[in-house]
Amino acid sequence: MARQTVFYGAVISPETLSEYQAYPHSLLCVNTSGNINWIVEDVVDSAVQDLLSQYGALEADFIELKHGEFIMPGFVDTHTHAPQVPNIGSGQQHELLDWLAQYTFPMEARFSDVGFARRAYESVVRRIIDCGTTTCCYYGTLHLESTKVLADIVHAYGQRAFVGKCNMDRHAPDNYVEPSADASLAATHALIAHIRALPSPLVQPVITPRFAISCTPPLLGALGALARADQSLLIQTHLSENASEVTFTRSLFSECTSYTDVYDHYGLLGPRTVLAHAVYLDDAEVALIKARDAGVSHCPTSNFNLSSGICKVGAMLDKGIKVGLGTDVSGGFSTSILTAIQHASIASKALAFHSPAPAEATFAGRQLPLSALLHLATLGGAQVCGLQDRVGSLAPGKAFDALLVSVRADAGNPGLWGADLDRELCTGDGARGGLDAMLERFFFTGDDRNVRRVYVQGRWIGGAEERR
Amino acid sequence: MARQTVFYGAVISPETLSEYQAYPHSLLCVNTSGNINWIVEDVVDSAVQDLLSQYGALEADFIELKHGEFIMPGFVDTHTHAPQVPNIGSGQQHELLDWLAQYTFPMEARFSDVGFARRAYESVVRRIIDCGTTTCCYYGTLHLESTKVLADIVHAYGQRAFVGKCNMDRHAPDNYVEPSADASLAATHALIAHIRALPSPLVQPVITPRFAISCTPPLLGALGALARADQSLLIQTHLSENASEVTFTRSLFSECTSYTDVYDHYGLLGPRTVLAHAVYLDDAEVALIKARDAGVSHCPTSNFNLSSGICKVGAMLDKGIKVGLGTDVSGGFSTSILTAIQHASIASKALAFHSPAPAEATFAGRQLPLSALLHLATLGGAQVCGLQDRVGSLAPGKAFDALLVSVRADAGNPGLWGADLDRELCTGDGARGGLDAMLERFFFTGDDRNVRRVYVQGRWIGGAEERR
Ligand SMILES: [Zn+2]
Ligand SMILES: [Zn+2]
Repeated sequence: MARQTVFYGAVISPETLSEYQAYPHSLLCVNTSGNINWIVEDVVDSAVQDLLSQYGALEADFIELKHGEFIMPGFVDTHTHAPQVPNIGSGQQHELLDWLAQYTFPMEARFSDVGFARRAYESVVRRIIDCGTTTCCYYGTLHLESTKVLADIVHAYGQRAFVGKCNMDRHAPDNYVEPSADASLAATHALIAHIRALPSPLVQPVITPRFAISCTPPLLGALGALARADQSLLIQTHLSENASEVTFTRSLFSECTSYTDVYDHYGLLGPRTVLAHAVYLDDAEVALIKARDAGVSHCPTSNFNLSSGICKVGAMLDKGIKVGLGTDVSGGFSTSILTAIQHASIASKALAFHSPAPAEATFAGRQLPLSALLHLATLGGAQVCGLQDRVGSLAPGKAFDALLVSVRADAGNPGLWGADLDRELCTGDGARGGLDAMLERFFFTGDDRNVRRVYVQGRWIGGAEERR
Repeated sequence: MARQTVFYGAVISPETLSEYQAYPHSLLCVNTSGNINWIVEDVVDSAVQDLLSQYGALEADFIELKHGEFIMPGFVDTHTHAPQVPNIGSGQQHELLDWLAQYTFPMEARFSDVGFARRAYESVVRRIIDCGTTTCCYYGTLHLESTKVLADIVHAYGQRAFVGKCNMDRHAPDNYVEPSADASLAATHALIAHIRALPSPLVQPVITPRFAISCTPPLLGALGALARADQSLLIQTHLSENASEVTFTRSLFSECTSYTDVYDHYGLLGPRTVLAHAVYLDDAEVALIKARDAGVSHCPTSNFNLSSGICKVGAMLDKGIKVGLGTDVSGGFSTSILTAIQHASIASKALAFHSPAPAEATFAGRQLPLSALLHLATLGGAQVCGLQDRVGSLAPGKAFDALLVSVRADAGNPGLWGADLDRELCTGDGARGGLDAMLERFFFTGDDRNVRRVYVQGRWIGGAEERR
């Protein structure tokens, strides 16, 4: 960007699980590096010029938001499978292990064809960006070349992401399994080198043992050694998604005390580990995750859809475990974190039907409030990826990874009743200017049409509004 | 319509909870009255002209569907509140009774202003039609004049519907309660007369005691007498949605043996009764509903969203109770039956986590299969409204209340991976031509953009495709 950009209008940003900022009239300046330069809250119209002058921003591009529009941090999707997007909305009568065998592995095997992969991924990544996901943790397939292509496309589009190729050298079909732990490790090294050679650092590699079942002990050990040797690498895997999977895993690793302990045993459980699902954990496992400062990717759409169960997110939040949201396509049937938000709310309410809140609980056994849903979708996800100092909230010095949201009727989503249609709606109290109501409407009735612009590192990379 | 219309392409239609028809190459003829004249399944290209000639339909408008398009019956929404659509996506931290007091009644009170009501309802009904709802059971407010306006707008747009004004003469705010049972009854009679005077019979009146709490015994008695006197009238109300509501209801009607028995006691439980929610029923209540042949409107979005609970739909289906789906806006946060389908699936899976299927069960304790979801959304809803001989499935003699669905990429919904993008997707076995996969994609990843045309009684009244 040649010039600074100043936004004038409503800004929403998470603080904690229980609080978020919502200022109807903020000035927010993005510098030429795409970082947030300064923010001034509660600026009346007549004070704007003086402030721009004072901050040396009179020459900046000036974008004034309308009533019903707001800026918020972009969504962080902490768990999804790019090659499964073509299967989205299919095979939902199955539980995990059958679904993998009948739908997932056959589709992923097709990505041995790099041309097919390129065509699919160009569309997949475009869709995920346009849903408002500014940071995404992608699983590719086991194929090195196709996963390089995925990283290249993400890089070209300008999304922030972690891209990993699946490590899987056993318990998979003959046409979709790696020949050896050594081959898997070599391909992993090659992908890391490829991604680190990309011109921008927005895309980063991630070690991706698919799940314990699909990895031999030598492979897990080698990946653990890699993680120890290179402390900058993120690790992503699946944990305790489904009862049959847990039973099978325990039978394969009788030397370990629990499913979680398998990853710990092989050096894969640490502060840079992203654990998807975590539905069936005992207290010792939860304590181990907390002790290692690993993060959890809560994927409620997938957990409902594959009849896996419900992750006890509230209890984890009460223990201080880092939690973000994941779409887990195509276990989940939506690429949008908005759907994950709706289902995280539903999951928390459904848990509360059956296990009412303990007296001392803040979140366990209670419905997740709007503040917590916002946090999970943004800053919580950033914490899980170790990016909390760069993204996830809007503050000076952080990258401008943000959405320009419209909850106006002219956004064209008939499911959302526009804040501009009715003066008595979305007014709320003066200080927050109805932003609480607008955020709730966006989360529960919004879709890609309400995500007008998607910015990553200050660059406008997607959204429903036509880029000129 | 001056001419017959013949569609050539894929047709999907429910049969039972376990079976549905799916023919990739059908000819379907709609006559000038908007009824289905004839259907021929499995027609090869070369046979089309001969068949048209044989049926005297060479002059008909001929519409050929593309790959990825299909015709199916329109959705039946058996329970929604038109005046609550402006509140959609608001106040979801509350349970039922608080939510009514703080969000619902204040919004509904605003509909005393007929001008406000007209502006709101014009937009509300348009949205509901464009989601694919061809038959809708509407609650208005308690206001006679505004509810007449609702009926007029539904009639003008050409949707099939039941429109009722709420009867509520107690336990509501001072500014939103009817002054007496007599006044409530008189307004009900006036609305019935108004609707029956409309030029087309597509819109019908429905007796709408809001719920037992809001009706004095004399009002319930008078409405029961009205229902007895006029056997053509439908009745709609709420039943056993929330634990606090059940407790309060039981305290108000100590002369009755259960919440369900309240409606039976006052003559309001019969084969034309639509009972929304039915979450907390004992065995005797379920048996009573079955004995009276009343129908249940399952509203899973609302039941999750207001932390009400989960309706045991599978057990009701096993007993032969009629069940349809309801959006229950704004207890539910979507006007689309597609969302209700997704949440009905989730609800059935969540119930199965906790109460596995009894051995003899077909649906109880199991996830609802695609066939049952289709049935609930169409023919099951029609049965609940007593319209099963007119709508809900596609067969000669029935009205052409139908959707032209597209699961193609050019429909513009980025959440759906188009069947046209990939030749290997949605192909399935030859006989059904991939239609099972297309239907599943539509149900779980479709939105209003995939509802290209909405037909009621043969008239194209809405949908995403621009009408020329
Ligand atoms: Zn996954
Ligand atoms: Zn209702």
